[in-house]
Amino acid sequence: MATLLVLYGAAADAAAFDKYYFETHVPIAKKMKGLRRYTVNAGPVATPAGGAAPQLVARLEWDSMAELGAAMESAEGQAAKGDLPNFASGGATVLVYEERVV
Amino acid sequence: MATLLVLYGAAADAAAFDKYYFETHVPIAKKMKGLRRYTVNAGPVATPAGGAAPQLVARLEWDSMAELGAAMESAEGQAAKGDLPNFASGGATVLVYEERVV
Repeated sequence: MATLLVLYGAAADAAAFDKYYFETHVPIAKKMKGLRRYTVNAGPVATPAGGAAPQLVARLEWDSMAELGAAMESAEGQAAKGDLPNFASGGATVLVYEERVV
Repeated sequence: MATLLVLYGAAADAAAFDKYYFETHVPIAKKMKGLRRYTVNAGPVATPAGGAAPQLVARLEWDSMAELGAAMESAEGQAAKGDLPNFASGGATVLVYEERVV
């Protein structure tokens, strides 16, 4: 699957982050066409090798890289990207890649 | 699914990293009990929001956090962890969490 992985850095106010993310950002992001699956961490993120734990890990999947790219370029994708500064106070690392089973 | 996400930092020698990872590390990691799915990026990892691209993104899944934890604590899990210094010259960020669909 074509994967958009977003690692949000620790937010200044975790409760406010969660409220905005789930009530406002998720509905915006879900408007992107061709989105097949959208998952987030259900509980805390552990970092057994050390380092700061992200606030949230989101994984969005499309059937192909072409569809993922089109979704990101679309008005809906630009709206989702443009929403990040509204809540991602700890920054966001965005990774885009195709996944394969090994 | 219970998820073990490993982000490997850029390696000094990408070809050597890939060779070791796929020929040696994957077979070691696959010995962990209960491992349901093991995926990696098939092509390059893009970072559209900027920042350094990881060398490799690996995602390993178990049915439950209990099974994931047991696998990490097992001799097979310790062997996989112990193998990291043999090839992860760019470091490795390890994230463990349960995933849920939103």
